[in-house]
Amino acid sequence: MTRTIVESKSKTVVIGFDEPFCVIGERINPTGRKKLAAELEAGDFSTVERDAIEQVACGATMLDVNSGAVFTNKMAEDPRYADNNFVEPMLMPEMISRIQKIVDVPLCIDSSVPGALENGLEMAEGRPLLNSVTGEEERLELVLPLVKKYNVPVVAISNDDTGISEDPDVRFAVAKKIVERAADFGIPAHDIVVDPLVMPVGAMASAGQQVFTLVRRLRDELGVNTTCGASNISFGLPNRHGINAAFLPMAIGAGMTSAIMNPVRPVEMEAIHAANFLMNHDPNGGKWIQFSRVLEAVREGADFAEASTASQAGASGRGGRRRRRA
Amino acid sequence: MTRTIVESKSKTVVIGFDEPFCVIGERINPTGRKKLAAELEAGDFSTVERDAIEQVACGATMLDVNSGAVFTNKMAEDPRYADNNFVEPMLMPEMISRIQKIVDVPLCIDSSVPGALENGLEMAEGRPLLNSVTGEEERLELVLPLVKKYNVPVVAISNDDTGISEDPDVRFAVAKKIVERAADFGIPAHDIVVDPLVMPVGAMASAGQQVFTLVRRLRDELGVNTTCGASNISFGLPNRHGINAAFLPMAIGAGMTSAIMNPVRPVEMEAIHAANFLMNHDPNGGKWIQFSRVLEAVREGADFAEASTASQAGASGRGGRRRRRA
Repeated sequence: MTRTIVESKSKTVVIGFDEPFCVIGERINPTGRKKLAAELEAGDFSTVERDAIEQVACGATMLDVNSGAVFTNKMAEDPRYADNNFVEPMLMPEMISRIQKIVDVPLCIDSSVPGALENGLEMAEGRPLLNSVTGEEERLELVLPLVKKYNVPVVAISNDDTGISEDPDVRFAVAKKIVERAADFGIPAHDIVVDPLVMPVGAMASAGQQVFTLVRRLRDELGVNTTCGASNISFGLPNRHGINAAFLPMAIGAGMTSAIMNPVRPVEMEAIHAANFLMNHDPNGGKWIQFSRVLEAVREGADFAEASTASQAGASGRGGRRRRRA
Repeated sequence: MTRTIVESKSKTVVIGFDEPFCVIGERINPTGRKKLAAELEAGDFSTVERDAIEQVACGATMLDVNSGAVFTNKMAEDPRYADNNFVEPMLMPEMISRIQKIVDVPLCIDSSVPGALENGLEMAEGRPLLNSVTGEEERLELVLPLVKKYNVPVVAISNDDTGISEDPDVRFAVAKKIVERAADFGIPAHDIVVDPLVMPVGAMASAGQQVFTLVRRLRDELGVNTTCGASNISFGLPNRHGINAAFLPMAIGAGMTSAIMNPVRPVEMEAIHAANFLMNHDPNGGKWIQFSRVLEAVREGADFAEASTASQAGASGRGGRRRRRA
C-alpha cells in the first residue's frame, strides 16, 4: 500500500490510496500575482500569512510555497535581481519561516531554482514535499540528490527535454523514467508523487480522459501517488468551478490522491468532501455533516474561511468529537 | 461496443459507453407522491403532462413512467381497485398516451405489474425501455418473454428471491444470471441495462465504492450498460445535492451510462454536463457553454426549465447550431 509521509513540526499527513484526498493549497505563489510579488519585494509577508491561515481554515491539508517572484524595482538598481537564481534562494526560506510560525501543516517547497529548493529544505520543519523534478536530464541530476540527501518525497512532473507530450503514453513513460532514475538514487516509489499534467479540456477534448487513464495506470503499474494542478482542466471556459467540481471527484474515483488547488472555494471543497465520503474515506460522514453546516452558513452570507474556523472551534468544543491527526 | 437503442416516435437515443450520459427523468411516479396519485385517481393528468414537459426542457434524455398509484377512494367503492394488477394495466397506457402526445423522447415503462408493462408496450411508440426485470424466478419468467416479444431493452435490477444482497459479488452474480437467462430467450446483452442497486452511503460506508466497482465489472465482464436510482446514494444526509453531484461524475467515470434521476435540479445536471465534457462526449464544449448560460440565468433568478427552454430556442434560432439527434 503506497503511503507518502509528509510532516510539519507536529503534524503527519499521509498521502495514500486509502486516505482522504490531500488538498495542497496553491495560493502562496507570486507567479501571476503582481501585487503579491510587489509586497514580497517590499519585505511585506502579510498576504502570504493571511493566505496561509485562510487556506488551512478552509481545509488545505498542505500548503504549496512558491518563491517565483520577479523583483522589478530591485532589478533596476541591482542587476543580480534579474536572476531568479539570486532572488529565490533568499526568498524561499523567509517565506517558509513566516508560514510555519503561524500554521502547522506540512509544506510543499515549489521552485524551479535548485538553490531555493535546498534553502527551503534547510528551513522547513518536519518532512516537506519537494516540488518538483521533471524528466529533464539537468533537473533529474540537480533535484534527485536533494531528495535523497534530505529524505523527502518529491513531485515528479511528466515532461522532459522534449517538452510536454500530448500523448499520454509518452507522459506515462516519462513518469516511469523518473521513478526508475529515483530508484537509482535509492529513492523509493512511494516518495514520488507523479503529476501526469492536466491539459485544458477546452483546448484538448480528451484531456479529462487522459488524466483518468493515466492516474489509473500510474497507480496500478508504478504504485505511485499522484497530484495535479486541478484548475488547469477548466482553463478558458465559462463556469470553471462547475468543471473543476466534476473533475476532482472523477480524478479521485480514478485514484488520484492529491491536487494543488485553491481550497478557498466552497464548490471545489464540497466536491472533495463528497468524494471522500463516497470513497469510504469519511466512514461515518462526520466530516461531510460538519462541512454541510459550513456551507449552510456560507449560503446565509458568511465568509467561507470564517465559517470553517467557527465550525472547527465548535466541533472541538463539543468534547473533542473532531478527531485530528496527531 | 455496447449500444442500447431506445426510440420515441421520431427520436433515437443510444445508451452506450461512447455516448453522453442518458438522463432518465424519474418524476412521473405516483409512489410516494400522494397528491399525484389522487390526481390520477380523478383522471387528472395535468401534473404528469407538466412533469413531462419540464423534465425534457431541463435535459432528460428519456422519461420514466411509473404507474404505481394507489386509488384510495375507488378502493372503498370497488374492492378490485385494491389490486395493482387491476389498476396499473389501465393506468399505464393512459399515462403513456398522454405523455407521448406532448413530448418526443423515448419512454421507460416502469411497473411491478406485468400487465401494466405489456399494456404500456402496446401503447408506446418507437422502442421503449422496459423497467424492470429482477433475478427473481417468477419475474424472469414473466418479463423476459415480453422483452423478447416486443424486442425492447430492459432494466435488470440485481436482486433475486433472497432479496437485495449487501455483498456486491452477489449482486454481480445476480446480474450475470439475468444476462444469461435473457440470452436463453434470445435477448442480447446490449439490450440489458443493469441496475447494480445503490445503497445510501449514510447507512453503508462502502456504498459508493461498491457501485463504482460493480459498474466497472458489469461493463468489462458482461459488456452491459448500467443505470441506477442515483439519489438513493444521499438518502438521509444533509445537502443531498452535493453528494449526488459528486456521485454522478464518479459513476460516469467508472463507466455508468444512464441514471433514473430528477433532471429538474441544476446542481445535478451541471455535474452531468461537466462529466460528459470531461469524458469527451461534448467534444467542442458546445453543450457545456450553452448550459453555463442557463445556469447564469438561474443564478439571476430564472426558473431552470424556462431558462433551459429559452436557451434551446435561442440556439436553434442561431442558424441551427444546436445539433439534435435525428
